Amino acid sequence: MNSSPELTEPEAASLPTIVDIRRAAERLRGEAVRTPLLEAPLLNERVGGRILLKAECLQRTGSFKFRGAYNRIAQIPEDDRKNGVVGYSSGNHAQGVACAAQMLGIPATIVMPSDAPRMKIENTRTYGADVVLYERFSEDRDAISKRIAAEKGATIIRPFDDPGIISGQGTIGLELAEQLAEAGAAPDAVTVCCGGGGLISGTALALEDTLPGVPVYAVEPSDFDDTVRSLEAGQRLGNPPEARSICDALLSPMPGALTFAINRRLLAGGVGVTDDEALEAMAIAFRYLKIVLEPGGAVSLAAVLTGKVPVSGRTVAVVASGGNCDPDMFASALERFPD
Amino acid sequence: MNSSPELTEPEAASLPTIVDIRRAAERLRGEAVRTPLLEAPLLNERVGGRILLKAECLQRTGSFKFRGAYNRIAQIPEDDRKNGVVGYSSGNHAQGVACAAQMLGIPATIVMPSDAPRMKIENTRTYGADVVLYERFSEDRDAISKRIAAEKGATIIRPFDDPGIISGQGTIGLELAEQLAEAGAAPDAVTVCCGGGGLISGTALALEDTLPGVPVYAVEPSDFDDTVRSLEAGQRLGNPPEARSICDALLSPMPGALTFAINRRLLAGGVGVTDDEALEAMAIAFRYLKIVLEPGGAVSLAAVLTGKVPVSGRTVAVVASGGNCDPDMFASALERFPD
Repeated sequence: MNSSPELTEPEAASLPTIVDIRRAAERLRGEAVRTPLLEAPLLNERVGGRILLKAECLQRTGSFKFRGAYNRIAQIPEDDRKNGVVGYSSGNHAQGVACAAQMLGIPATIVMPSDAPRMKIENTRTYGADVVLYERFSEDRDAISKRIAAEKGATIIRPFDDPGIISGQGTIGLELAEQLAEAGAAPDAVTVCCGGGGLISGTALALEDTLPGVPVYAVEPSDFDDTVRSLEAGQRLGNPPEARSICDALLSPMPGALTFAINRRLLAGGVGVTDDEALEAMAIAFRYLKIVLEPGGAVSLAAVLTGKVPVSGRTVAVVASGGNCDPDMFASALERFPD
Repeated sequence: MNSSPELTEPEAASLPTIVDIRRAAERLRGEAVRTPLLEAPLLNERVGGRILLKAECLQRTGSFKFRGAYNRIAQIPEDDRKNGVVGYSSGNHAQGVACAAQMLGIPATIVMPSDAPRMKIENTRTYGADVVLYERFSEDRDAISKRIAAEKGATIIRPFDDPGIISGQGTIGLELAEQLAEAGAAPDAVTVCCGGGGLISGTALALEDTLPGVPVYAVEPSDFDDTVRSLEAGQRLGNPPEARSICDALLSPMPGALTFAINRRLLAGGVGVTDDEALEAMAIAFRYLKIVLEPGGAVSLAAVLTGKVPVSGRTVAVVASGGNCDPDMFASALERFPD
């Protein structure tokens, strides 16, 4: 029985398993940060429930993306390494690829949208990568990346639809299950930020093994709710080209083939949150948890704070994916939501 | 030989030791957060050295103060507990005492300056404490606290000059030494925020045992550099009454008797930083480490960023003490120091 009829046979055979995630955890040991699971009594009191937040903003490069990038790049055959890697990304995958490549001694070229946060572009360059800018809404980043890769013989490191990437992100699920047990917490639900679906598909795969039966929800920007709609439709649907959001980390055009095959099997559902709800969640994380989240990294918390994933009288684990936020955006979140 | 001639004999006999700190660590196990030791490659590149930051802003109540308060309150004899505790504090100790008392089922009254950050006052109330406000620069908080304690038969929980408090804060030093070893880092120096000296005296005591010979530096606001001047003079000196700083957590009038007896024996020295240098350190911690520091919690990082404690070509461990910052203060730090 092929449980993923929408995939080609080679694609279906490549889908990662819990074994791949455990191997990724071995590769990442001592390289990635075991990010803390944070909890604030005053926040719990505010929501009338228990929130435990996996703070991937404290990951190397400021987002979870380092995990998948390192796991994928570390598996490039020796002979291909000298030709380098090419990544395309709004910024967090860019930094993850650049940093992982630098640590592994491999040259990196990163194709980034010209409207990505300035900090993400600067940081990517500081990790030693060549940055090639393109226009997000008029140029085709896939085509640009393929051309560069062909010229150099380089390996393309896709941002989410790759078994090595998914397995790397899945290590978050392994740690989350361990840390929830350490905290004596049995979650009623898990919320995860969702762009192309790499983070949540890997996390859900790990939780299927470590916390079976706990529902996992994808959280997206309301106007980029392709995974929510795709889950409901039972097939991959894209976002309208005119959609815009401040959640720059989550603006993928549609779910990945591999990630969606996993997500349709494992996710309990998904919800969308507005840009303002993401900004307010950033201000709440500032106030109660003392961490910096970027808009796209805060949507999973926003889903809980808004009650879209209920927390009252319950325990919800939240995977917050990144903190690479420009200072002016963060200041405006604090000014607009001081309480 | 009495190595602390300025203390009375009972005071000298009460000075905590590494044994007391290890006992405190046992009491705090599962109650306090083992805060992470954070490091950012891009920050290291910026300073040309290695910074490892102990993020006590991620501690329960948003600052290290919970450790000492819990350790001290947990040692109150059973018969005295019903009469409650009284604490006086600019805010972080207040929250620490209120939270620890609540966890231990003991009533708490907190005497706080009326100009303390609104958030700290609100949070203290939310932990179930009675808050009594006073005027920082005209009223005597000690006298107010003693009167309340006498009326209730309550135990006064001093903010720093108490063996149980010092031992609790010292657990940071134990964790720091463990985490530095885990990170493969041998520090050339340690910087610690310093108000009354409870945090640094406890930390220095722990490091004397776990990292002997590593110099520990007190960092204070320039205009509240009582410990720096006292160390130089060899005796306790106070701050001028007209001194002001935005580092509300560090505005103690002079070093404690116990804390100074420890600090004069163990510290390598101290430095002062300006309010602007503290604000810039907050912006740097935002950008590179994705954490929220309050001004007083950032001075230890500011000392390194300014080169007052040199980091170029070296490894420095920084104890950042808290993150209870009003949003407008944080936003202004980001706006003034965007890079």
